[in-house]
Amino acid sequence: MSTAEIPSELIDLLERPVYGTLATVGHDGSAQASPMWFELVDGTVRFTHTSTRAKYRNLLRNPSMSLAVYDPENPYRYIEVRGRLAEATPDPTGGFYQRLARRYGQADPAAPADADKRVILVMSIDKVIGR
Amino acid sequence: MSTAEIPSELIDLLERPVYGTLATVGHDGSAQASPMWFELVDGTVRFTHTSTRAKYRNLLRNPSMSLAVYDPENPYRYIEVRGRLAEATPDPTGGFYQRLARRYGQADPAAPADADKRVILVMSIDKVIGR
Repeated sequence: MSTAEIPSELIDLLERPVYGTLATVGHDGSAQASPMWFELVDGTVRFTHTSTRAKYRNLLRNPSMSLAVYDPENPYRYIEVRGRLAEATPDPTGGFYQRLARRYGQADPAAPADADKRVILVMSIDKVIGR
Repeated sequence: MSTAEIPSELIDLLERPVYGTLATVGHDGSAQASPMWFELVDGTVRFTHTSTRAKYRNLLRNPSMSLAVYDPENPYRYIEVRGRLAEATPDPTGGFYQRLARRYGQADPAAPADADKRVILVMSIDKVIGR
């Protein structure tokens, strides 16, 4: 799905530096949810993560991802973007972590201590829900 | 798990009328996420929902639920509560919907138009994560 197919009246929720909550599925089929930084890039949603965490292993097993974002100024407005892990790209300098940190308001973010484990989760967009 | 086992430094995130995001698992095993009103009652988390929506049918099939809440004033603070649907109680007057609407700032909420389909989702708390 290209970015153009995201409803124009909701796309601000993906473009503004608002926190999202990412839902994934655990190894036992359970639902999991965690607040995440993200960025909409070329019709994908990108997250910074590490290759050592359970969520990463879970995503390799079940690539399903869903990101929900509500408008902090009007929580009735929200978007849910469903898709899957299309790619996990190593980010060994932590540069994408720093890019997201700046997007979310840090003036001069340092590289993360776990830079050598950092990966960029690239989520394809299969379906968009919202109001 | 009793409410007393929720870390005292995070319990405000469940007690304040902050929006949460509920993760569930779809019929095809996919992750789903949606912003929700909730209330912490007697060591359970309660949501208002309807018996006609896909999410309700999905929960009957896979009762896993996970609620993530971040602090709007400091999004680094968050809590994730994992559990499962312990009970779905009919709410045929929409009274619990109205209770939540008041909790989230509506002065005098009307009963919902779909009151006859309303249910209270009662989520047990099995695990708490956060910082």
